[in-house]
Amino acid sequence: MTPEEFRAVGHRLIDWIADYREGLADRPVMARTEPGEIKAMLPASPPEQPEGFDAILADVDRILVPGLTLWQHPSFFGYFPSNVSLPSVLGDFLSTGLGVLGLSWQSSPALTELEEVATDWMRQLLGLSEAWSGVIQDTASTSTLVSLLCAREKAAGFAMTRGGLQGEPTPLVVYASSHAHSSVAKAALLAGFGRDNVRAVPHDEAFAMRPDALDAAIRRDLAEGRRPCAIVAGVGTTATTAFDPIAPIAELAREHGLWLHADAAMAGSAMILPECRHLWEGIEGADTIVLNPHKWLGVAFDCSLYYVRDPEHLVRVMSTNPSYLQSSADGRVKNYRDWGIPLGRRFRALKLWFLLRAEGAEALRARLRRDLANAAWLADQVLATPHWRVLAPVPLQTLCIRHEPPGLDGEALDRHTLEWVEAINRSGSAYLTPAVLDGRWMVRVSIGAELTERSHVEILWSKIRRAAGAA
Amino acid sequence: MTPEEFRAVGHRLIDWIADYREGLADRPVMARTEPGEIKAMLPASPPEQPEGFDAILADVDRILVPGLTLWQHPSFFGYFPSNVSLPSVLGDFLSTGLGVLGLSWQSSPALTELEEVATDWMRQLLGLSEAWSGVIQDTASTSTLVSLLCAREKAAGFAMTRGGLQGEPTPLVVYASSHAHSSVAKAALLAGFGRDNVRAVPHDEAFAMRPDALDAAIRRDLAEGRRPCAIVAGVGTTATTAFDPIAPIAELAREHGLWLHADAAMAGSAMILPECRHLWEGIEGADTIVLNPHKWLGVAFDCSLYYVRDPEHLVRVMSTNPSYLQSSADGRVKNYRDWGIPLGRRFRALKLWFLLRAEGAEALRARLRRDLANAAWLADQVLATPHWRVLAPVPLQTLCIRHEPPGLDGEALDRHTLEWVEAINRSGSAYLTPAVLDGRWMVRVSIGAELTERSHVEILWSKIRRAAGAA
Ligand SMILES: Cc1ncc(COP(=O)(O)O)c(C=O)c1O
Ligand SMILES: Cc1ncc(COP(=O)(O)O)c(C=O)c1O
Repeated sequence: MTPEEFRAVGHRLIDWIADYREGLADRPVMARTEPGEIKAMLPASPPEQPEGFDAILADVDRILVPGLTLWQHPSFFGYFPSNVSLPSVLGDFLSTGLGVLGLSWQSSPALTELEEVATDWMRQLLGLSEAWSGVIQDTASTSTLVSLLCAREKAAGFAMTRGGLQGEPTPLVVYASSHAHSSVAKAALLAGFGRDNVRAVPHDEAFAMRPDALDAAIRRDLAEGRRPCAIVAGVGTTATTAFDPIAPIAELAREHGLWLHADAAMAGSAMILPECRHLWEGIEGADTIVLNPHKWLGVAFDCSLYYVRDPEHLVRVMSTNPSYLQSSADGRVKNYRDWGIPLGRRFRALKLWFLLRAEGAEALRARLRRDLANAAWLADQVLATPHWRVLAPVPLQTLCIRHEPPGLDGEALDRHTLEWVEAINRSGSAYLTPAVLDGRWMVRVSIGAELTERSHVEILWSKIRRAAGAA
Repeated sequence: MTPEEFRAVGHRLIDWIADYREGLADRPVMARTEPGEIKAMLPASPPEQPEGFDAILADVDRILVPGLTLWQHPSFFGYFPSNVSLPSVLGDFLSTGLGVLGLSWQSSPALTELEEVATDWMRQLLGLSEAWSGVIQDTASTSTLVSLLCAREKAAGFAMTRGGLQGEPTPLVVYASSHAHSSVAKAALLAGFGRDNVRAVPHDEAFAMRPDALDAAIRRDLAEGRRPCAIVAGVGTTATTAFDPIAPIAELAREHGLWLHADAAMAGSAMILPECRHLWEGIEGADTIVLNPHKWLGVAFDCSLYYVRDPEHLVRVMSTNPSYLQSSADGRVKNYRDWGIPLGRRFRALKLWFLLRAEGAEALRARLRRDLANAAWLADQVLATPHWRVLAPVPLQTLCIRHEPPGLDGEALDRHTLEWVEAINRSGSAYLTPAVLDGRWMVRVSIGAELTERSHVEILWSKIRRAAGAA
């Protein structure tokens, strides 16, 4: 394809995307596709001859779009928001169009240096001290894995350069809240700690980790001859956005010499609001932090920010330095390949930089405050309505709610909950994700899609009451 | 930003990218930036107020573009090609513009099902049997890590569900060629095997792993009470594109019950050419294969294809299933989050699908054959020129060459080599990466950027002779 052909199709695609974004609200939020339905509409074998873009775009419209669940829809209240703000889209377009690769600083200096600058801009917006250095990873899952690998090697005195975890006489132990995201246990298992050495620390009634229980678990492991290694603290957990209390946890980490990783995947974005920062008080005592600007903040997926206090340790764990990757600039520059798992790296800083510049920090803060106010409004409505409960504190923009009509409990209540939420999802008019809390299903309402205004939340609330009344 | 504003800026950006691609050949291939130069031109703090796109694009032109090393330039002969073909760019634009996320099938069914179809199209193009299931990962580094984690858990009988690697009595051992990519040792160390348990198996004079040496290494470890676990075979190594002989290696893997992972990151793309498939003869005996369509084939980075014979095993190692990720479709669909490390996933299949459809398989094969012919032509020239050597076989499109004028050897020869290659790189007229082979520097000429025609290779060859003559 020549640049001229690209220009022609590119203009059409821009219009297609603009139209799609404009028309989003009129489509069903959740795909109504049956398993295998899309696959069955696509040819089983690849084409030998080129096909025109008319054919390709027609298939996008006819086959793919009906099979999408629309994360950018104003009535998307599922999971956590994953905003793909339009300025960030343009930044990502530029990244792909440039087609450069960051294997090393030399392989495209601007890619590395803009990443340094953009992650430092974010550091300032989040109110973090200058002690932190940032890098962009793909996801929080990967970042947490990297943290646990760093923790492992710190505790084991770089056993990777010897017998690895296989040569360690004393098992290393990882601690996280019983409400930690599934990626934490996954990371610990992949890092080789083993499930027997991963502790789910009990939570309090606000679903936050109990420091006294953490302390007890650490002491028990020490007494039984194991070696406490790392704590993962949840800064906004997935089920309820609970905040594990960082300050006392950091104190324990310091006392016992443990690595402290803060998983602020969702809630980290809130820290651009000074009034939210009390929620992660003590954060400077962590060793590493992950937060996902690809969630609420609006940077196109994938953009996970990973901050470390000791980049040298990270590089020592991650670096490889074969001759074919060396360059004469090496001593004087950052080679981000040594800050994570992949070698090749996209120019991901562009989508973050475009968003920050095109929106400005003030507008980003205003949008997040809008969402907090909408969540507070909805919480008030639910609390004021008979037989409805808000099951957890609402420090941010996610509510955990349940309709508990008289006489319904146990599995019957679960059936009722799943029925009304499925009815809403199937209707296509809004999307919510149910989850289990204290052994019973409830419904998470996660507010914060970029297009979601108060009116959408009001409509949702009346839909919810209707669906639960009918179910 | 409204869709209408996006439309306006988007059109400008398309033109900007089209112009940039058109004008690529007139820019210096390697950035001439000094370390810190770009950072110093950017504001130290983020903007509070929005900035217009004029300002942003002006900074792209003025600050960023001069700091890029141009991977899409017709005279880019460094590393391996990383083509970002324009139809693939459009597919990636669509992915970002749609802004959907694959956490589970349900979270956007089309994302999962197109990935199944596109990876199966590639399977067919590569001549692999139906026994393989594919998934898109970000990079070969990650894919190889996933393979070694699967191998570890297979050999250890899912020790991750118990004490992890920490509970294993017998150390597990990984084998790879002494010419394996640095990502292999990195993956083994991150997976916890430890450097003492990673074997660099000697190579033959063609830089391919010696099966007899592999056999000996396995037997030695067994005799000394260790447990052989996995072999990583290089299908096209990074320094010289050497091919470890898969058939006898697979035979040894079978005999000893070892996991066999084939790292075909670069050379896998060549397997769309039936005449190249003898190079990975025996591949059906592997357990997992990785290849990067984001290299030679032309899919925008990142797109690494990972094929497995036993998806159930992979899922057992990688899966987590918290309530907030469950859906009623789960039993009947693929949840690709359980096929790799990250939870969130982009709609990456689009960029592969767009490329295959817009180009057609025939054109892709023709382009790769063009590059093979150009490499063969250059090899002939080098061989026919006094004092020039081709240091390794040229099975594909990468040559390892050295100018060895009479009387120069040892470190003086190294200095000469690095001087002439740096002179070319600094001139901006072509880009080459030097590497160490058998303890001495040589220069890799990796042909295969999409725009590289015979004429560019001819010009390169005369530049090389001039630079080496003058150095
Ligand atoms: C608290 C928390 N941690 C980690 C993750 C995983 O995010 P990612 O998809 O970036 O791995 C999530 C996702 O929702 C999360 O809520
Ligand atoms: C043989 C081989 N394996 C792995 C890699 C790593 O590739 P990635 O950047 O996708 O991790 C490369 C990169 O050049 C390679 O040549």
